[in-house]
Amino acid sequence: MFKIDQKILETSHPVLSLEVSDLRLVDDTRWPWVLLIPRVSNAVELIDLAPDLRDQVWLEADQVARVIKARFSPSKLNIAAIGNQVRQLHIHLIARFIDDSAWPNTVWGVPGAEPYEADELMSRVRDLKSSF
Amino acid sequence: MFKIDQKILETSHPVLSLEVSDLRLVDDTRWPWVLLIPRVSNAVELIDLAPDLRDQVWLEADQVARVIKARFSPSKLNIAAIGNQVRQLHIHLIARFIDDSAWPNTVWGVPGAEPYEADELMSRVRDLKSSF
Repeated sequence: MFKIDQKILETSHPVLSLEVSDLRLVDDTRWPWVLLIPRVSNAVELIDLAPDLRDQVWLEADQVARVIKARFSPSKLNIAAIGNQVRQLHIHLIARFIDDSAWPNTVWGVPGAEPYEADELMSRVRDLKSSF
Repeated sequence: MFKIDQKILETSHPVLSLEVSDLRLVDDTRWPWVLLIPRVSNAVELIDLAPDLRDQVWLEADQVARVIKARFSPSKLNIAAIGNQVRQLHIHLIARFIDDSAWPNTVWGVPGAEPYEADELMSRVRDLKSSF
């Protein structure tokens, strides 16, 4: 049975379900940052997915990337499947800006997450949902 | 006309050309680390590629990931399109190990690159080429 990893649940909020993946917002206002999590039990590597499913995951990643680009106009998109800390397959999509606090470095492992306030979170999630 | 970014040229070595991308080995022995560079002038974001080309790039990334997995048996593959420092579209594929020097953190920006010796480089490139 498919379950989302506990650490992902604790550090992100649900946005919506796409055809094969769940989209979640990382609870850190420093960067617009979402996770795309294919609903496949025990998936770890992209190459372990069946080809059709892998294609659909990339279509959904594309769709999310277009929403992030349209909504935030980032200087650069960062898209990555890493999984060193949480093995469950998940794809990071992050809007980066030349004046953000980590630029031009990557954001993984940068301490000091700044959680969303309740209002801010509801508005951000609503806004993302309405873009699909 | 298609050209590979100067910083990529200076920090990596050619391995081979796939149908739409060039594969290069990052000159750092700390991790088996390759770059896949679609031969598309001025490409920056994956979502800017035509859909057929984007699909082919992911097929090639998959092919490379399978080679890396078979050849190095990593604890985890890291696959990422970042581009904060070099805007030209390129995909990182890195074999990570639970006993490597950056684990479980990411490898981008970790100082102290350890370049290949000439023999080691030739052998690694030959080995990778023969896997395709």
